[in-house]
Amino acid sequence: MCTFAGELFYYLNMSATVSVIKIGGNILDDPESCSRFLQRFAALTSPRILVHGGGKIATQTAARLQIPTRMVDGRRITDKAMLDVVTMVYGGLVNKNLVAGLQSLACNAIGLTGADAGIIRAVKRPVKAIDYGFVGDITAVNEHALTTFLNNDLVPVLAPLTCSDEGLLLNTNADTIASATAVALARHYPVTLVYCFEKKGVLSNADDDESVISSLNPVSYIRYKNEGVITKGMIPKLDNAFQALASGVQQVIICHADNLDDALAGKSGTLLNN
Amino acid sequence: MCTFAGELFYYLNMSATVSVIKIGGNILDDPESCSRFLQRFAALTSPRILVHGGGKIATQTAARLQIPTRMVDGRRITDKAMLDVVTMVYGGLVNKNLVAGLQSLACNAIGLTGADAGIIRAVKRPVKAIDYGFVGDITAVNEHALTTFLNNDLVPVLAPLTCSDEGLLLNTNADTIASATAVALARHYPVTLVYCFEKKGVLSNADDDESVISSLNPVSYIRYKNEGVITKGMIPKLDNAFQALASGVQQVIICHADNLDDALAGKSGTLLNN
Repeated sequence: MCTFAGELFYYLNMSATVSVIKIGGNILDDPESCSRFLQRFAALTSPRILVHGGGKIATQTAARLQIPTRMVDGRRITDKAMLDVVTMVYGGLVNKNLVAGLQSLACNAIGLTGADAGIIRAVKRPVKAIDYGFVGDITAVNEHALTTFLNNDLVPVLAPLTCSDEGLLLNTNADTIASATAVALARHYPVTLVYCFEKKGVLSNADDDESVISSLNPVSYIRYKNEGVITKGMIPKLDNAFQALASGVQQVIICHADNLDDALAGKSGTLLNN
Repeated sequence: MCTFAGELFYYLNMSATVSVIKIGGNILDDPESCSRFLQRFAALTSPRILVHGGGKIATQTAARLQIPTRMVDGRRITDKAMLDVVTMVYGGLVNKNLVAGLQSLACNAIGLTGADAGIIRAVKRPVKAIDYGFVGDITAVNEHALTTFLNNDLVPVLAPLTCSDEGLLLNTNADTIASATAVALARHYPVTLVYCFEKKGVLSNADDDESVISSLNPVSYIRYKNEGVITKGMIPKLDNAFQALASGVQQVIICHADNLDDALAGKSGTLLNN
């Protein structure tokens, strides 16, 4: 009965809720905010996965290397030179500093790109009106490998890089990494997907940081959109979140990075469910 | 009996020989040599760990960022700016491209720095005559974590970065990472440590690539040194290798990267044993 480790592990902890927690760029870029977040994240005891971006640091590093940054609709055009930059910044600088910081807080973090242990496979995005270059569209998440890590009390820290079957590293949006990972794990566990950023949740008034909408479902979301209460910047994130819910994720939370623990306890942020 | 995974795994595969294989900088820097090496490495079936450097790429990247490289006795002085460079280059660019390349060859690689899963702990080297900056002296290798990976058919790919208890990433010589890892695993497995580089082994005549010394033991090594046959560049590597043997590693092989499989079969390279 103990011959295949993945299976064994899978049965051991099947009822635990897994949190997939995405940390936004504005938190990463501010050392004090990031440090406070890591302390909260490290103090959690449930199985969890951290997903990070790092776009601003990539843009700064590219500038220092005299590589121009081109964005289309908020997405980075990734030629070969820019792919090397994001591989260095996301896979190296940002990922390893987060892992080292968590290790110092007794959180047994392990940094992974999609290439590592074949965690996240992707194909290079087909060229249509725009050639995004070395950007990946996710085709598969290896939830068995992630499960093995979680069941060994490891805390995966995922960089926004995926890998093609041909061994090509590909730049992939961190929100998408988080939702695809949550959906894949939701086949086996109850999963909570959390987006941590610099606001207290989805706001009904962008100028009032206290105007948090405490819960959203697909019906109220459409109403808020139609009323113009929820506007442009938040819509792709929420569309993505409701898609994750429709694909089996139990709940999605959008909260301030400082309120991670309160939000997981239902006391802060915006809770999305079906 | 199945409650603690590490223990379970440990008992399953205890008799397998583990190879710790270090790939030299000159191979990494040449895409064709590197590709040939990865094919040979991927084709092996025994449990194995790859250790890489990447100093030349770090020096080039630092130059592009206008960060000067300072070396003392072949060791890099690592100030904060250089630490960020080596974290990007070793932990990101080099490590993730090796992992992606191996994955495309059906080798289930996982890239790790010393921070990941707490694999390799170190202390910042004390300042004596020279301040090496953020350079790590290894204090512990977590062979249980490595064992768990190996027993899940993962192939660890180790970057030359370690981590202090305070969460500080530290630059650490790749030869030292390889020998410390081999010594730690040798407490539990028979271990072969392999240094792959651009020569066919230890040469008795530096100008003749075919003058390979097929085997060395501590006595013949001292004789060759005294006769001036083995000279300066090779001595630190061989001292390190004989120390690993004295600490429990079963054999050390020094070979050309193109001959990895032949060398493991005893048909090529220089074999060191006690």
